[in-house]
Amino acid sequence: MTNGSEAGSPAPAADPATGAVIDLLGLLAYAELVSFFRLSDDAELAPTLADKGELAGLAATEYGHYRMLHDRLTELGADPEAAMRPFVAPLDDWHARTRPQSWLEGLVKAYVGDGIAGDFYRQAAELVDDHTRDLVDGVLTESGRAEFIAAKVRAAVADDPKLGGRLALWARRLVGEGLSQAQRVATHRPGLAELLASSAESEGGSADLAAVGRMFARLTDSHTARLRAMGLAT
Amino acid sequence: MTNGSEAGSPAPAADPATGAVIDLLGLLAYAELVSFFRLSDDAELAPTLADKGELAGLAATEYGHYRMLHDRLTELGADPEAAMRPFVAPLDDWHARTRPQSWLEGLVKAYVGDGIAGDFYRQAAELVDDHTRDLVDGVLTESGRAEFIAAKVRAAVADDPKLGGRLALWARRLVGEGLSQAQRVATHRPGLAELLASSAESEGGSADLAAVGRMFARLTDSHTARLRAMGLAT
Repeated sequence: MTNGSEAGSPAPAADPATGAVIDLLGLLAYAELVSFFRLSDDAELAPTLADKGELAGLAATEYGHYRMLHDRLTELGADPEAAMRPFVAPLDDWHARTRPQSWLEGLVKAYVGDGIAGDFYRQAAELVDDHTRDLVDGVLTESGRAEFIAAKVRAAVADDPKLGGRLALWARRLVGEGLSQAQRVATHRPGLAELLASSAESEGGSADLAAVGRMFARLTDSHTARLRAMGLAT
Repeated sequence: MTNGSEAGSPAPAADPATGAVIDLLGLLAYAELVSFFRLSDDAELAPTLADKGELAGLAATEYGHYRMLHDRLTELGADPEAAMRPFVAPLDDWHARTRPQSWLEGLVKAYVGDGIAGDFYRQAAELVDDHTRDLVDGVLTESGRAEFIAAKVRAAVADDPKLGGRLALWARRLVGEGLSQAQRVATHRPGLAELLASSAESEGGSADLAAVGRMFARLTDSHTARLRAMGLAT
């Protein structure tokens, strides 16, 4: 009754992959929760009270997303904490390996992290039931909140071009560390990896290594667009 | 037009004390922002993911209050950051001197801090213009969010009565450190001190030392009620 499917017609993508969809929501939920905490920490590097307040606002938005995902997991009959647990170590490790040493590194991380999360939400939107898709769309309409960050980084780099090289390296490290954690997740949650990779196929075909490769290529392309927005790539 | 006063009749309390009202809003705004950050930190002491999420939710609520106060300061033509600045050092110092060493100390601090903030909002509600009062009322209707904390502390103390003594001392330290910072603020912002103390007089009479004493007595009474709610006082 609540999943919006007509009587007799099976729910589209969610049914065969319910476990993987729960995994996906658990991954996104914990990613939002931990990014709430890390953004709050990093906001303390802010040079002004106003900047501090703005980054705190971004963190509070992440908390709101966490809350929605958490509630959706409960509605689906899953234990939200159990759904998040497999992703605690990889996400905590990613953050531990990418601790910003300066306000600008914190901004680049917030922008890159928010962008990658957005890419995942877009992938996820193709895979889930209608109700969950509404939630994902709600999260995505709030993206763009991070755009003020790109402008700040661009301005700082324009003032001091050497900074650009250093921050570009930092952005590369963020993604490199992210890829190793993603591999770790894919190894331990093959169902989730398959679900995400198959969504990269416009025909909804089955996942293979080439599909995974194309998925990463798409993520890399949008990462490059974000670097450009920050003035960190030509 | 927006302050709701009739033509010809002067705005009630705000006019003679505009500077002090700005001070009050600046104090509350920075208190909310810094408590957002400290609650986020303390949430990391949580023993479970669910507890972590709940305390993060409390932090996100504080951010929402900060945002409302910040916007109200802007509407009043004040520079929000300038209004907050005098209170940065006293509030930061209070937090630095009351860093919780355990999850339960963190909970007691969150509950006591939230309660004291509520007391201040109630005092403030008597002093401000209609529009600001709506905002303050909005903040107060959200209080009670912290009540789940009292239940958690009470349960822990019931399990281990020795804990009760230690946490009661901790609560006393929170208030003691708070009073020294309040004295510091009162010395540097006499207008604000006078405003708050005069609101303690039901006749709206002028502030004197006795009035300040009675204000502190009222704050102490409600603090004792909170200790009782946590099982830390008989």
